[in-house]
Amino acid sequence: MPNQSIELDRVFYALADPTRRAVLERLSDHPATVSELAQPFDMALPSFTQHLNVLEACGLVRSQKTGRVRTYQIAPRPLKAAERWMVKHRAMWKIRLNQLDDYLNTMKEKKR
Amino acid sequence: MPNQSIELDRVFYALADPTRRAVLERLSDHPATVSELAQPFDMALPSFTQHLNVLEACGLVRSQKTGRVRTYQIAPRPLKAAERWMVKHRAMWKIRLNQLDDYLNTMKEKKR
Repeated sequence: MPNQSIELDRVFYALADPTRRAVLERLSDHPATVSELAQPFDMALPSFTQHLNVLEACGLVRSQKTGRVRTYQIAPRPLKAAERWMVKHRAMWKIRLNQLDDYLNTMKEKKR
Repeated sequence: MPNQSIELDRVFYALADPTRRAVLERLSDHPATVSELAQPFDMALPSFTQHLNVLEACGLVRSQKTGRVRTYQIAPRPLKAAERWMVKHRAMWKIRLNQLDDYLNTMKEKKR
C-alpha cells in the first residue's frame, strides 16, 4: 500500500522534531492560534509557521482562518496508523527476542 | 528531559523512511547480513548502508562483525519510548475530541 507508506513517512517525519511534538502536546488541551502556539518558542515566526505546515500537510493538525486569525486544532487519525505500525512490530520483535532468549538458555543448560 | 527528546527525534526520523521500515520488518523474522538485507532493494550499497547506519545510531538495530560479514539484529527498546509518546497523546486527544463532540451535540439539542 504505497499511499499508506507515504502517510507513515510524513507522520513519523513530523514527529521527529521537538518543536512539532510540543505543538501537538499543547493542542491536546484545546485549539490555539498561531501566536499562542509560537509564544513559548524562541524562534522567528516564519520558521515556526513551517513547523505548523509540516504538521498540517500530514494531517496531524487542521487549521481555520477567522478574519486575520488562524486557529489550529489536533486531528489524531494519522497518528493511529503510525501507532498501529509500531505496536504490531514491537510485539513481533518481543516474541522473536523471547525465542532467542529461550534458545540461548537451552544452549546454556546443554553446556552444563 | 532533553536526552529522551533527542532519542525520540532520532527514532521517529529513522521510522520516516520506507526502506528503513522494511529493514526493521525483515529483521523481525531473524538476524540478517548486510547483503541479505540489501538484496530486495534496487539501491547502491553505500546508500543502503547509510540507512542501516541511521537505524543503528538510534539503537533500533545492533550489528556484529564476524570476519568480513556484518550481521544485524533488531533492538526494540527505543521503539518503546516512541510508542509510549504516541499512545499517551492519542489517548489524550481522543478524550478532547469526545468532549468537543459532546459540546457540539449539546449545542444542537439546545437549538432544537
